[in-house]
Amino acid sequence: MKMGQTENIYLNDPKWVREFLTGLFKTAIDAANPELCLPQFLPEPPRGRTIVIGAGKASAKMAQVLEKHWKGPLSGVVVTRYGHAVPTQKIEIIEGSHPVPDIAGYNATQRIKECVSGLKGDDLVICLISGGGSALLVDPVKELGFEQKQKINQALLKSGASIDEMNCVRRHLSRVKGGRLAALCHPAKVISFLISDVPGDNVLDIASGPTVPDPTSCADALQILDRYSITLPDDIRSLLETWQLETIKPDDPCMKNVEWHLITTPQMALEAAAQKAKDIGLSVHILGDAIEGEAAELGRVMSGLAKQVSRRDQPFARPCVLLSGGETTVTVKGNGRGGRNVEFLLGLAVALNGASGIHAVAGDTDGVDGLEEIAGAYISPNTLARANLLKIAAREYLANNDGHSFFEKLDDAITTGPTLTNVNDFRAILIS
Amino acid sequence: MKMGQTENIYLNDPKWVREFLTGLFKTAIDAANPELCLPQFLPEPPRGRTIVIGAGKASAKMAQVLEKHWKGPLSGVVVTRYGHAVPTQKIEIIEGSHPVPDIAGYNATQRIKECVSGLKGDDLVICLISGGGSALLVDPVKELGFEQKQKINQALLKSGASIDEMNCVRRHLSRVKGGRLAALCHPAKVISFLISDVPGDNVLDIASGPTVPDPTSCADALQILDRYSITLPDDIRSLLETWQLETIKPDDPCMKNVEWHLITTPQMALEAAAQKAKDIGLSVHILGDAIEGEAAELGRVMSGLAKQVSRRDQPFARPCVLLSGGETTVTVKGNGRGGRNVEFLLGLAVALNGASGIHAVAGDTDGVDGLEEIAGAYISPNTLARANLLKIAAREYLANNDGHSFFEKLDDAITTGPTLTNVNDFRAILIS
Repeated sequence: MKMGQTENIYLNDPKWVREFLTGLFKTAIDAANPELCLPQFLPEPPRGRTIVIGAGKASAKMAQVLEKHWKGPLSGVVVTRYGHAVPTQKIEIIEGSHPVPDIAGYNATQRIKECVSGLKGDDLVICLISGGGSALLVDPVKELGFEQKQKINQALLKSGASIDEMNCVRRHLSRVKGGRLAALCHPAKVISFLISDVPGDNVLDIASGPTVPDPTSCADALQILDRYSITLPDDIRSLLETWQLETIKPDDPCMKNVEWHLITTPQMALEAAAQKAKDIGLSVHILGDAIEGEAAELGRVMSGLAKQVSRRDQPFARPCVLLSGGETTVTVKGNGRGGRNVEFLLGLAVALNGASGIHAVAGDTDGVDGLEEIAGAYISPNTLARANLLKIAAREYLANNDGHSFFEKLDDAITTGPTLTNVNDFRAILIS
Repeated sequence: MKMGQTENIYLNDPKWVREFLTGLFKTAIDAANPELCLPQFLPEPPRGRTIVIGAGKASAKMAQVLEKHWKGPLSGVVVTRYGHAVPTQKIEIIEGSHPVPDIAGYNATQRIKECVSGLKGDDLVICLISGGGSALLVDPVKELGFEQKQKINQALLKSGASIDEMNCVRRHLSRVKGGRLAALCHPAKVISFLISDVPGDNVLDIASGPTVPDPTSCADALQILDRYSITLPDDIRSLLETWQLETIKPDDPCMKNVEWHLITTPQMALEAAAQKAKDIGLSVHILGDAIEGEAAELGRVMSGLAKQVSRRDQPFARPCVLLSGGETTVTVKGNGRGGRNVEFLLGLAVALNGASGIHAVAGDTDGVDGLEEIAGAYISPNTLARANLLKIAAREYLANNDGHSFFEKLDDAITTGPTLTNVNDFRAILIS
């Protein structure tokens, strides 16, 4: 703690605490804003042509920022989710369906493939990848129809296979994933800018790695399909058995001129928020950038941890801020208006039961928690008491997965508008 | 870290790690053993008589230890759960039903009341209280039958009332809780020795506080019943309305000669294990003594935290041990042989997916995780791989709530036998 900084901390002022915590959330979103995190990574324009391609929920916004800062001619095509397009002048933006692919995504993928065909060694392809790109960049191997591909996907989801195993199979059944899109750009140089929304930030996992070489093989994919007894049409199976669906391997010559930059990640967003807390002299602890689990249950667990801090200064001394990211899940049982973050906060508030000195904020960094344009919410030690006065019972709203209604009635919802980026959830708990 | 202690750490030796972690679990159990934690609290014998009473799962064992160490005459009656009696010579042990009360518990309670009637000022009552005592010490107000009491209890459980609210109502409908048992001992001195199994270790919450004054009133109980629209028989309601069911208040003269000692708590057990890890030079962090939530979900959350430590030395530097206690829940969906701790470990192992350098142990300090005489289990980075070789899929066993079968097949179950004490669950995760 630097001298003179504690004078900026007003932990006994509820208004200050609320503004401080919502400010941390906004700092995390800013850290993930392509406008702020992309420009410094841009290379010098090449001698040849510059082609921009990309796929993902943030990719139209990334294209817009790229256009604004690029010092040379460029053209290209980027596919994003319905409703996520932004105005561009040189790069064409196409919208498609996510999470279930549609023909618009397929057509966009064909346009992207056309863009990168016939390039030369002094050309440059800039690939803008973000979460959701896997469903938007869709090009199943010829022998596999849309429907058949969907069937295999469903079988994988039901099988109990891990996400790594599912992705291995998916990469081998696509014509653009597992490095194949980068191979189509050869011999041009390929630079990918990626916004990570996957635990571990493995570039192969973001949008199924269209420009990233794949260390797994057809044999691995077959082994996984056999392990979970998933049947394939005979012609596809024989293509896998004869290695005709092989992805691009790390030592493939066409990968020599390919590089990746993670321009923002959940951890980077958490670090930015942590720095802001440190700057005013508060202790801050990052619990994890990939904390998963049922949202309300995570709330209960965090309540136990926060109470330990509050009662015993264990495992952290007070006052302090606990930050975490990642993507929780909500098993919907009610019919309310909910989202992962408000569900987490309701679970936390109920478990804390008004414990003094504990405030929290949680929100989705894409600005949309669940299906509504509400990013998240805020809780304080008097959240339950205020709800009781309004005759709304937190437990009932939680049971009905109705977090947005609950926090709207308390005037504690946080709205940011769509941020056109996504580094998953952001949670901050202040224990004073 | 003291000089020369790191030589005792062999984090690369799986056998050492396993013995170390199971050793921590046993240290926690020992810290909760009445044989080790009761004797130092015993007072000098009084001039008058010494009467021993008590209720709870550990109370027979506490009585046995007391007899062995007491330097004077004594007599008394203690009620414990079926199967939890141990041989005693002077104190009568009666078994009753838990968690649903039965007539045996009711009769034992009457015997206890007889024991403490007609005492004098120089007599001493020693009261041995532990978890489960609330169901074993059963004496509803006369106007309320067993059945009616059960009905109100069911309504409370369904209502969404908090545990504090439910306990307030229960205390007012009992003739021995909320300090009333201590009042019956008046004018004798009353010393209670308590083993806590409740979050927060509030002595009023352990077995509903038979010897602890109650700050809540009949008016509070009525307000709670009204808040959750729970109807009472008219005669009971009118008793509450006319303050005839009032519990004993902190300023009641008969509470002057009453004291309590928490002889062991979940936190004390965690601290004992922490000290053992520190003694060999390992960093250790206590995350909480009352961590609650769905067991498998807690496993997923802990996986996220452990991976953050492993990848980034956040929020703790490696190597370190993370300890936690408390009581998770299991929503049973399958028909396997499960328990809270093996469910937690399965959830953790599946989420860790073989992450290197992370080992864990979890167990119930009473030696019985779920319904079987298995205390808990152990996982290592190769747990899933070894299970795959045996053709048993962790995910399937988890879905079937079949943790005990899973860990038995791997020979990773931990058996301690019934420990006759209970400070809830114990979890330790080592990240090297």
